[in-house]
Amino acid sequence: MKLVSFEYRGATSFGVVDGDYLVDLTPIAGEVGGSLKAALANGSLPAIGKWVAGATERIALGDVTLLPVVPDPEKILCVGINYLSHVKETGREIPVHPMIFTRWADSQTAHGGPIVRPIASEKLDFEGELAVVIGKTARHVRREDAAGYIAGYSCYNDGSVRDWQKHTIQFIPGKNFPSTGGFGPWLVTADEVGDSSKLTLTTRLNGTVVQEAKTDDLIFDVGHLIEYCSTFTELHPGDVIITGTTGGVGAFRTPPLWMKAGDVVEVEISRIGTLRNVVVDETR
Amino acid sequence: MKLVSFEYRGATSFGVVDGDYLVDLTPIAGEVGGSLKAALANGSLPAIGKWVAGATERIALGDVTLLPVVPDPEKILCVGINYLSHVKETGREIPVHPMIFTRWADSQTAHGGPIVRPIASEKLDFEGELAVVIGKTARHVRREDAAGYIAGYSCYNDGSVRDWQKHTIQFIPGKNFPSTGGFGPWLVTADEVGDSSKLTLTTRLNGTVVQEAKTDDLIFDVGHLIEYCSTFTELHPGDVIITGTTGGVGAFRTPPLWMKAGDVVEVEISRIGTLRNVVVDETR
Repeated sequence: MKLVSFEYRGATSFGVVDGDYLVDLTPIAGEVGGSLKAALANGSLPAIGKWVAGATERIALGDVTLLPVVPDPEKILCVGINYLSHVKETGREIPVHPMIFTRWADSQTAHGGPIVRPIASEKLDFEGELAVVIGKTARHVRREDAAGYIAGYSCYNDGSVRDWQKHTIQFIPGKNFPSTGGFGPWLVTADEVGDSSKLTLTTRLNGTVVQEAKTDDLIFDVGHLIEYCSTFTELHPGDVIITGTTGGVGAFRTPPLWMKAGDVVEVEISRIGTLRNVVVDETR
Repeated sequence: MKLVSFEYRGATSFGVVDGDYLVDLTPIAGEVGGSLKAALANGSLPAIGKWVAGATERIALGDVTLLPVVPDPEKILCVGINYLSHVKETGREIPVHPMIFTRWADSQTAHGGPIVRPIASEKLDFEGELAVVIGKTARHVRREDAAGYIAGYSCYNDGSVRDWQKHTIQFIPGKNFPSTGGFGPWLVTADEVGDSSKLTLTTRLNGTVVQEAKTDDLIFDVGHLIEYCSTFTELHPGDVIITGTTGGVGAFRTPPLWMKAGDVVEVEISRIGTLRNVVVDETR
């Protein structure tokens, strides 16, 4: 099942994608929860699946405005340098612990939404990543039990303002400019994705492949990340773990490759889909 | 005016402190907002001041359970190594930009609440800090205009699990264990605090002074921090900026001084008050 959050005729809702259409879940929001996050918290995915099988009304995907897959996660945990190929590129040592930083929800942007290059910097970079959406409250979870806490997967572009990321050793400022983190197009439930270590991730800038990786190159796999993160914080339904980017980012190219207004950036992951954003300049 | 969030007879509310008593704002919640965060967002502090002046009912402070001053901030921004004396202690260079990391709301604990030492570590440290509570949505604010965006101040103990803080260069894991960040006892409105660079901050562990500083030792003052942070993210009413700690933390002592179950830790700031917590061990 593919789930999206969206706006349609002025109202915010969520639904299930069916080809070029979606089934709006508003009619059963009272039963399953009023948002994707609420539905996950209520354990409603099976009920949604059943209801959608019999639903007859459809909205064309092109008629809605998609929102970030989860527009309002409580926690967005990002993992730094988690692909071996990216570690080599940055010249760092292979880490013994996952490197965790955070984004806030308002730094996100939807599939089809703008990635905003801020006035404050010209050093806007892409980072294609696999996103894991948590489906169940998780604390002190062992990696071998982690699968039971995963609702599904999506694509993420962990858009980074590199000079602000490197003002100090803490990445937060460069990772939280508004509308820099692409999250979409949808959540594909874990049962449809299968083994998350067997995916291919491709980032394209204006049609040119700039990043390509297999998720079996992850230093800390999804289970390990859930174990580590759930040791220091409680994860809740709708929370997102962005599993890190691979080699090829613009900052480490010679000369550096920064995104600019009009650029089209895509993050494609096999078995999931393609997240597409257009870069625009911040206006004040 | 001193504002608190609290639980009383099973209900969550907020109120104004009057000596050893408080005036519950539940009767005017419909007008001013149902929580301290909502009241700030509604610009309700003047209306609250007026109503409280005529209110006759009081609850003894000892009869309520205090909550973190703002129990549900959307964003908690923490500043690393922002006191010259602490910079010297850590052996780092004087920073040219504020070092920003984050906490989530569920890492907080109230005045009188427990600071929890996790099973995962014995290296639990204190960090007494001045907390700034944002009163008005702030984006692209210049430092000379920052005062207009400050609702008030409080004390914070940015409790840190040092080994998890240093697993990688990103501090997040060590700063987000549940119930490690003391925040209280109350918000003192900016008008009553006056110049935030003229405060004295004292941390005591079991009655012994372990940290002492004047806020004029801050490398980046409150106005500068609001300017910097509001450039990369939008700040909202109820958001908290924790302005950094001073010299004397346990990690840099010989031998290190870690907090353990039964310890009493206090953060006192002149013109604001004293935040007091008792350390307990995590139980599973």
